[in-house]
Amino acid sequence: MPEHNALDPIFNPQSIAVIGASRQMGAIGNIVVQNLIDGGYQGALYPINPSATEICGRSAYASVSAVPGPIDLAVFCVPEKLVLALARQCAQVRVKGYVVITSGFSEVGNHAAETELCAIARAGGGRVIGPNIVGILMNPAKANASFAPCLPYPGRTALVSQSGALLVALDLATHLRKFGTSSMVSLGNMADLDFADCINYFARDEHTACITLYIEGVKDGRRFIEAGRRCKKPIIAIKAGISEHGAKAAASHTGSLAGSVKIYDAAFKQAHVIRAATIDELLDCSQALSLQPPMRGGQNIVVITNGGGIGVLSADAAEQYGIPLQAAPAELQAQFRTQMPEFGSAKNPVDVTGGAGAAGYEGALEFALRSPWVHAVAVLYCETAVTKPMAIAEAIVSGTAKAGGAHAKPVVACFVGGEECQKAQRRLLEVGVPLFTEPAKAMAALAALRTVARFEEQEPDEAFVPFCEVDEAAARRIIAAAREAGRSVLTEPEAKAVFASYGLPVTRGLVATSAEQAVEYAVRLGYPVVMKIVSPDILHKSDAGGVKVHLRDEAGVRAAYQAIVDNSRAYKPDADIHGVLIQVMAPVGREVIVGSVNDPQFGPTIMFGLGGIFVEVLKDVTFRVAPFSAACARAMLPEIKSYKILQGARGEKRRDLEKLTEVTSRMSQLVSDLGDEIAETDANPIMLYEEGKGLKIVDARIILKPHATGAPQPSAH
Amino acid sequence: MPEHNALDPIFNPQSIAVIGASRQMGAIGNIVVQNLIDGGYQGALYPINPSATEICGRSAYASVSAVPGPIDLAVFCVPEKLVLALARQCAQVRVKGYVVITSGFSEVGNHAAETELCAIARAGGGRVIGPNIVGILMNPAKANASFAPCLPYPGRTALVSQSGALLVALDLATHLRKFGTSSMVSLGNMADLDFADCINYFARDEHTACITLYIEGVKDGRRFIEAGRRCKKPIIAIKAGISEHGAKAAASHTGSLAGSVKIYDAAFKQAHVIRAATIDELLDCSQALSLQPPMRGGQNIVVITNGGGIGVLSADAAEQYGIPLQAAPAELQAQFRTQMPEFGSAKNPVDVTGGAGAAGYEGALEFALRSPWVHAVAVLYCETAVTKPMAIAEAIVSGTAKAGGAHAKPVVACFVGGEECQKAQRRLLEVGVPLFTEPAKAMAALAALRTVARFEEQEPDEAFVPFCEVDEAAARRIIAAAREAGRSVLTEPEAKAVFASYGLPVTRGLVATSAEQAVEYAVRLGYPVVMKIVSPDILHKSDAGGVKVHLRDEAGVRAAYQAIVDNSRAYKPDADIHGVLIQVMAPVGREVIVGSVNDPQFGPTIMFGLGGIFVEVLKDVTFRVAPFSAACARAMLPEIKSYKILQGARGEKRRDLEKLTEVTSRMSQLVSDLGDEIAETDANPIMLYEEGKGLKIVDARIILKPHATGAPQPSAH
Repeated sequence: MPEHNALDPIFNPQSIAVIGASRQMGAIGNIVVQNLIDGGYQGALYPINPSATEICGRSAYASVSAVPGPIDLAVFCVPEKLVLALARQCAQVRVKGYVVITSGFSEVGNHAAETELCAIARAGGGRVIGPNIVGILMNPAKANASFAPCLPYPGRTALVSQSGALLVALDLATHLRKFGTSSMVSLGNMADLDFADCINYFARDEHTACITLYIEGVKDGRRFIEAGRRCKKPIIAIKAGISEHGAKAAASHTGSLAGSVKIYDAAFKQAHVIRAATIDELLDCSQALSLQPPMRGGQNIVVITNGGGIGVLSADAAEQYGIPLQAAPAELQAQFRTQMPEFGSAKNPVDVTGGAGAAGYEGALEFALRSPWVHAVAVLYCETAVTKPMAIAEAIVSGTAKAGGAHAKPVVACFVGGEECQKAQRRLLEVGVPLFTEPAKAMAALAALRTVARFEEQEPDEAFVPFCEVDEAAARRIIAAAREAGRSVLTEPEAKAVFASYGLPVTRGLVATSAEQAVEYAVRLGYPVVMKIVSPDILHKSDAGGVKVHLRDEAGVRAAYQAIVDNSRAYKPDADIHGVLIQVMAPVGREVIVGSVNDPQFGPTIMFGLGGIFVEVLKDVTFRVAPFSAACARAMLPEIKSYKILQGARGEKRRDLEKLTEVTSRMSQLVSDLGDEIAETDANPIMLYEEGKGLKIVDARIILKPHATGAPQPSAH
Repeated sequence: MPEHNALDPIFNPQSIAVIGASRQMGAIGNIVVQNLIDGGYQGALYPINPSATEICGRSAYASVSAVPGPIDLAVFCVPEKLVLALARQCAQVRVKGYVVITSGFSEVGNHAAETELCAIARAGGGRVIGPNIVGILMNPAKANASFAPCLPYPGRTALVSQSGALLVALDLATHLRKFGTSSMVSLGNMADLDFADCINYFARDEHTACITLYIEGVKDGRRFIEAGRRCKKPIIAIKAGISEHGAKAAASHTGSLAGSVKIYDAAFKQAHVIRAATIDELLDCSQALSLQPPMRGGQNIVVITNGGGIGVLSADAAEQYGIPLQAAPAELQAQFRTQMPEFGSAKNPVDVTGGAGAAGYEGALEFALRSPWVHAVAVLYCETAVTKPMAIAEAIVSGTAKAGGAHAKPVVACFVGGEECQKAQRRLLEVGVPLFTEPAKAMAALAALRTVARFEEQEPDEAFVPFCEVDEAAARRIIAAAREAGRSVLTEPEAKAVFASYGLPVTRGLVATSAEQAVEYAVRLGYPVVMKIVSPDILHKSDAGGVKVHLRDEAGVRAAYQAIVDNSRAYKPDADIHGVLIQVMAPVGREVIVGSVNDPQFGPTIMFGLGGIFVEVLKDVTFRVAPFSAACARAMLPEIKSYKILQGARGEKRRDLEKLTEVTSRMSQLVSDLGDEIAETDANPIMLYEEGKGLKIVDARIILKPHATGAPQPSAH
């Protein structure tokens, strides 16, 4: 038996009331009742209608109060203006789930009613799905609590969609594609239950092996990541609204904000969610993920084929998906050779040739599955007049069986051909082998199965353990002082002080307010020095003529002091000048940048890249939602194209990646701890030195949120 | 009537002889005869078999000489050892086409028989398809001259495949997909007829509107490009063997060399061939290309949808395919608004909403097609219980009709749903509107239609007109001298002299053989100078300590001379030292590289990129097969990711792109003229200056082909 699950009354209801049940054909209140009956729902069904005694052959009730038993789920099919009053009645009888099909809420700006609806439901111990949805469809409970025309084709994937229209279309498509689902959930406005709740539920649902999401925007990015990370089942999602134009369309559609695609990419990785690029990929991979085990332990894939062409295409696709084919070991090749005519190929792809027939497939598959070198198998087949698709399907069934059911290696198939291939598809589905019609799709499915295994493997390293030798209070004092001075931008010395309080290595510096002091500080710090204007009103210091470098003596420092102050006054006469920063001149290293934004969905998020043109022209950067471990930071590095430069390409020295990952992780802690205060940060440039020689943050910027959001005030004030 | 076409006897044969026709069920010689009969072939059919009088109910003949009439096509189904003798008999009776199904030729190393086969056929006025093929299938002639089980579903695409197994599978798949083809051609070893011949034929075939290719490798890249460029019909191709592993698989499969994918990419652009990434994309786009007109004049696409979700996904996909959606103009939006309820969206995607029904689609489609702003329309539909797919299909049919058949704008559709959508697909196919089940596919199809129009638009600029003020003879003299000295690598001064003979701006320099002469040359050229060792045995001059820069006076030049010679002798004691190059020191500019390779398939091919890490680490380069026009060179620039740097990103000055494109085009002429001699060139670095200030080739390398290939000797020798 599955563990107790708080949302069971919603997704496995013992009783359903249809609020606004109707006798009128075509009315949603009629369709929903009929759908529940047609679907074969076996629980108690209560049509609620104040003026009917019978609807679709079932006894109707005037209100939920009149219902003789408890109500798990109430499906709302009434106009918006009636929803709140009827929800209150439901709360009185402690309905557990409110599936609110009705639209006219936040998607048209009516936020108040939506908030009130949730408050009513929660006060009565219930939860809301919707509003503005198609409904929910559960195959195990045979409950089609929606206006979608039928329960989906049965399967082991739970599909959760923010688009109702797409959900209905995909529901119909399951029957055509033989892509089965356990449940389908329309989330609509996500006033209460959201993707995280669905993940949490289906993670424990015994009927579900994979969770499939159509996402336009998540509301609480952190909860989403946590739910994904905790879930031990594969999750695959398509994020709609990744184009500038698409994002606009999403915004006007569900009222949810669509975040930057790079941040979603990062969050998906952290949530252990696989990202699909298209609907086809979403469904194809879901099927494989729900039927086959992850590709654990490595990625040696054997491709068995009867035609060179699709073999070549599969090798191309495998490489594109990051799981390139490798030649099979000699002893395995020898085994394969026993299964094919002389002109076959025992390498990889294993070409049993067009004439080989089903026996060659069966034998090769069994050898592949038994070989400890192999982690997954793809069986490709071009339909011929000689060997029938069903014979190959049976060969796959028996080859898999002979290898023993406990091999726990994924097997996928790709048949290119006509109608006979469709029949073979059904046969293979019976034994859980997904069949595709395109080699690239089979490889995409294997890549997804490999990603699931990688998520499992990474997990132990990913837990974030905060650095303890940080001084959050000191950082907050600096920020509070700036806010008291009416500023939302920290000066460079302030930003560096905040960074330093988190143990981040910044260049040492002192702010001089006279030429005398400048010289004194330069001597104290040691020549050569750099000098920079310190003014909250001058963000682009170089443009203002406010930066001088390579200063080697007293005369130079004096002259520079005067020039910097004069230039800055000329640049911006009313600028508030705090002084001139005298700073140790850091040796030249490879410039990198670590920065942060405070994403509306995911909160503080770290960006990493190489400095200068790499970030500004090539946009060669990568993100992670903060905070994260050093191991997680380490995984970011190879995601940029210029990574090889840090590794020591082209005669350069290998850089101190150890220190870089520690600093990135520390920075993630800083922006996370101070997420209530900080809008954006930039450590740019960071001079990154050779292995073992660390790094220095040479310039720093921190921009505060416009208004402090009720954050705890630093104790010292 | 179509123009006379030399390959008509092959692809539209009036008579077919089956060489090796057989009474034995299951023998290829039996299958082919039966297939021709079953397919409904109406021409004369002559089964050839020395020991049969009747095969499959048709009179058999002992040999082709016994056949009473002329023979257009002979299909060979005999073992390899009989092919040549029977081919000779065919040549005697002047058979026009030899379709050689038989295998056992070059694919197993038997090149001699293959060459002989072609010689026999050509001597008799015939041409060969194959050997090692499935055969050819022509719907217009109802000729299934193959062992594939049936003629393909009818359509207007000619499919040419280098993989026989894939051809059979796709033949069967046409019936499932309703993806029709006019003809299907299996090319096999391409001993004679190849892709270029097929393009040339189908370019003039009235039954074919689009040409679809599965390519593992082309044999004569130049002919392929020329044929593609001349063809006025869309061509789409998938290149198999683009992975390192895939390339190996292709090599072992057909014996053809698979070229670098970047060079194929370039060649496809130059051949006006669209590249598909997957079989699905190949077939989906072919269908659109064969049914719909190119997207001419611009790329304002209107998406009409009943669901926000697929609308958002289509916008995402459109951006990904380089055809981002734009908001429709106000007056068009006003028209759209008349076709939808208030909560619809008249922007783009145009959301007529789930309740809008067929009328909304029809109206919106008509408005879109009538609007001069619009260049293409995609109609998306999520199946609902309310509006049936067939009703939407009829709305598309009538909306298109009402807008007038002469609008010449592409229309594609995407329906997501169940079986009813399949019926709608058939209805739409009747009026030539392709229907997809995935928004991304509809957008891929539109992108392909846009690419066809772009090829048309680019064409006038692409013709290469040779630069006339070049001195090819001078270049050949330098090369010949080096060859006479037994070298296959030119020294830097030699390479620069070759470049200069083609009007390429190289830094001036003189080779000194003594310190005295070095000083004399430095004075003549003007200080500062650069000095470099000149030795055919020292390729990496810096590594040898053979380069000194920034030399400003006599003492410096003397010291440098001695140091360079000493270092070089120490580095490689037996090096043949020609002297020391004294060279004008070019001002620093943005470093770019123009180089060339001599590709086995495409011949001399130019590479362009930014220097240093951009080429070495980021591999940010682009190719074109030489020679090409300056307009063509101009089109290369935006293909590198770092292009913005040349445009003047990040405070840099815009570079002299005018001069750069001229130089690249000149270089393409050089490597093309001297393609018989030159294996590789490098102009690296080239210092590229600000707009109007030109560029300088600072270092140059030319590597000759191992052996001169019978090139005309320079006249001066």
